Amino acid sequence: MSRAWQTFKKLPTMPVIPNFDPAAVSASVLERLRATLSTQEGFVPLHAPSFAGAEWEYVKECLDTGWVSTAGKFVERFEHELETYCGVKRAVAVCNGTAALHACLIVSGVRANDEVIIPSLTFVATANAVMYANAVPHFADAEEKTLGIDPTKLSSHLDRVGEMREGQCFNRETGRRIVAIVPMHTFGHPSQIDELMAIAKHFGLALIEDAAESLGSTYKGQHCGTFGRINAISFNGNKVITAGGGGALLTNDEDLADRAKHITTTAKLPHPYRYDHDVVGYNYRMPNLNAALGLAQLEQLPEFLRQKRSLALRYKEAFAGLPGLRFVSEPEFSSSNHWLNTLLLERGNEDALDTILKVTNDANLMTRPAWTPMHLLPIFEHCPRMILDTVESLAKRLINIPSSAGL
Amino acid sequence: MSRAWQTFKKLPTMPVIPNFDPAAVSASVLERLRATLSTQEGFVPLHAPSFAGAEWEYVKECLDTGWVSTAGKFVERFEHELETYCGVKRAVAVCNGTAALHACLIVSGVRANDEVIIPSLTFVATANAVMYANAVPHFADAEEKTLGIDPTKLSSHLDRVGEMREGQCFNRETGRRIVAIVPMHTFGHPSQIDELMAIAKHFGLALIEDAAESLGSTYKGQHCGTFGRINAISFNGNKVITAGGGGALLTNDEDLADRAKHITTTAKLPHPYRYDHDVVGYNYRMPNLNAALGLAQLEQLPEFLRQKRSLALRYKEAFAGLPGLRFVSEPEFSSSNHWLNTLLLERGNEDALDTILKVTNDANLMTRPAWTPMHLLPIFEHCPRMILDTVESLAKRLINIPSSAGL
Repeated sequence: MSRAWQTFKKLPTMPVIPNFDPAAVSASVLERLRATLSTQEGFVPLHAPSFAGAEWEYVKECLDTGWVSTAGKFVERFEHELETYCGVKRAVAVCNGTAALHACLIVSGVRANDEVIIPSLTFVATANAVMYANAVPHFADAEEKTLGIDPTKLSSHLDRVGEMREGQCFNRETGRRIVAIVPMHTFGHPSQIDELMAIAKHFGLALIEDAAESLGSTYKGQHCGTFGRINAISFNGNKVITAGGGGALLTNDEDLADRAKHITTTAKLPHPYRYDHDVVGYNYRMPNLNAALGLAQLEQLPEFLRQKRSLALRYKEAFAGLPGLRFVSEPEFSSSNHWLNTLLLERGNEDALDTILKVTNDANLMTRPAWTPMHLLPIFEHCPRMILDTVESLAKRLINIPSSAGL
Repeated sequence: MSRAWQTFKKLPTMPVIPNFDPAAVSASVLERLRATLSTQEGFVPLHAPSFAGAEWEYVKECLDTGWVSTAGKFVERFEHELETYCGVKRAVAVCNGTAALHACLIVSGVRANDEVIIPSLTFVATANAVMYANAVPHFADAEEKTLGIDPTKLSSHLDRVGEMREGQCFNRETGRRIVAIVPMHTFGHPSQIDELMAIAKHFGLALIEDAAESLGSTYKGQHCGTFGRINAISFNGNKVITAGGGGALLTNDEDLADRAKHITTTAKLPHPYRYDHDVVGYNYRMPNLNAALGLAQLEQLPEFLRQKRSLALRYKEAFAGLPGLRFVSEPEFSSSNHWLNTLLLERGNEDALDTILKVTNDANLMTRPAWTPMHLLPIFEHCPRMILDTVESLAKRLINIPSSAGL
């Protein structure tokens, strides 16, 4: 495990592109951001929600009827509309995306001391959810094309460390069972699902999509979060739509959906007044108040996606021809929700990252680098992993730029 | 452990009070409920929230400003008003009471395989929170006076099973460390805090109040949830005030509060744009939308408490003189929020429980027995415990009756 880190440390410095000047390119990035966003005044956040639909009406209805909490019709309506929108049999609304992913892992049979393959390039919630299940994250490298897990590298890695015994994959280095793979659709861009599904099948792994960032994204015409047996989405305040907090599990498996609903609502056995619980359950239900907000937001999702696609196209045009970096476009097999638009510095130009971040943030245009890769956080440095050189490189070259639908 | 259960099984049947007829007493209970609630028509739930304050104003402000989620001023305002109301230095708002208790356990140093003493007579969330910390619930018996943990029995039990080593208490039967005691203030009635604090001190245990049900209750003039070093309250939809969902930690310890805020907000280290996390954190933050609702509710709490006290007094009067059962009054050293009003059948009259539940619920007046005691749920039957005969008796004799402030 420490070998991967040492490999990274010893990577030779890449040659800097001639005439690539961090200050000049930062000024140019700022100029192009301003031109694309034209009329924006004041602070421009990375992603802000927009409430232009039935938010007032539905939330007020909650208050007027007194049904703000665990009962009330909006949770059911929200779940139903999610099912219709995503083209999936069942949606189970919960309090946030992390809770959704935790519940996905439990109902998929992840047990203490199992290993779960997740991208190192992800928000910490993916790794945390694995920890809540007392399982162990096993980090996979990313590919530049999708920013998701690199299927080719994962396949080689599992060929090397995986040992099949009676249809189950074991890590021959740690002795632990490898039970699941959790691809995350980075910034809304779909990962290479077909290839990852094939790997999951070959090694007997459950595939669970962390589709927290990709509501509205499709892979070959099918909605992200509907490929794995059960999958997680998020409605956090910074996402493409929000329920205040909020998340959901998506699945075509009725039994898994029932199980997910059960364990996310304290695992109480149905009875008019008796309080019996058959497993350790969670208080993960989505309050009706939040579902009312989420429903109003979901109704506007097609328009948000249209606006976000238009913004992405404008960005793409604006940054075309700027040497040393490129705008990250959706993978060719997909339609991205363009949750967070992203610039990617070419290898060798890593020095410009901090300058660009500083210049843009100083100018009140919020930009952000990628998350610190999970395997570089001390809390996860002991976890198993493959060689993660692409993740480590991407983390020094990615810049998220303002992406709200309203821009 | 199985001994306690056998002891219970072998208890002699108590003599039935002469002339105590379940059908007659059920009819009388229904009559007295109806008389007390006088004007109520239709279904009367056990506890429904009332929104007569600034709920819409605050919630609308959230929507209009766009701050519904993780940022915005209502979380801070709500926390501040909770601090003022409860007379405590710090309140940390989270997504629900279970999350609050889980976070209390973590910051109090509860570790995997530790034992935590909790009442067997409680909602399952108390036991679940212990399980989330990978610790082991150790069940304590209740007393009839407060419905909380019986300090005398707990003290004797710990004298018997507890072994002190270097200031730490070990369970000589299981070999595990006993690290904390979590008294729960049942239905809003304060437990015997002084006695329980003395026991905690004597055995080197952290005391954490599960004050989920007791916002607005005081013990000897001091607010429940402010005695332990850090303590949990809840704003679930059925509680005395609601934030849709919601909970909070209360503490006078600034360090513990900072730590609780940190781990309940993904443990991200402060930085304008870097995403580094130093421990496994949780997505337990309360959305701003829910805090707006909670703040409006908190402003009305004194009035709700006045109304609920009035209802409890009317109930007490109505049920005085009805043979075979009594209304459970607040313990003499306390002021209860009267969250859920409770009737208690006298020993020997357990047969009337189901009849009363049926007659009242059939008449659209919701009533409910106590939760199934934790140690009788198969998921917890393996857990250590003292003899729990009072809990087992209470669970067959308790009936919650409609308790909304508006009644």
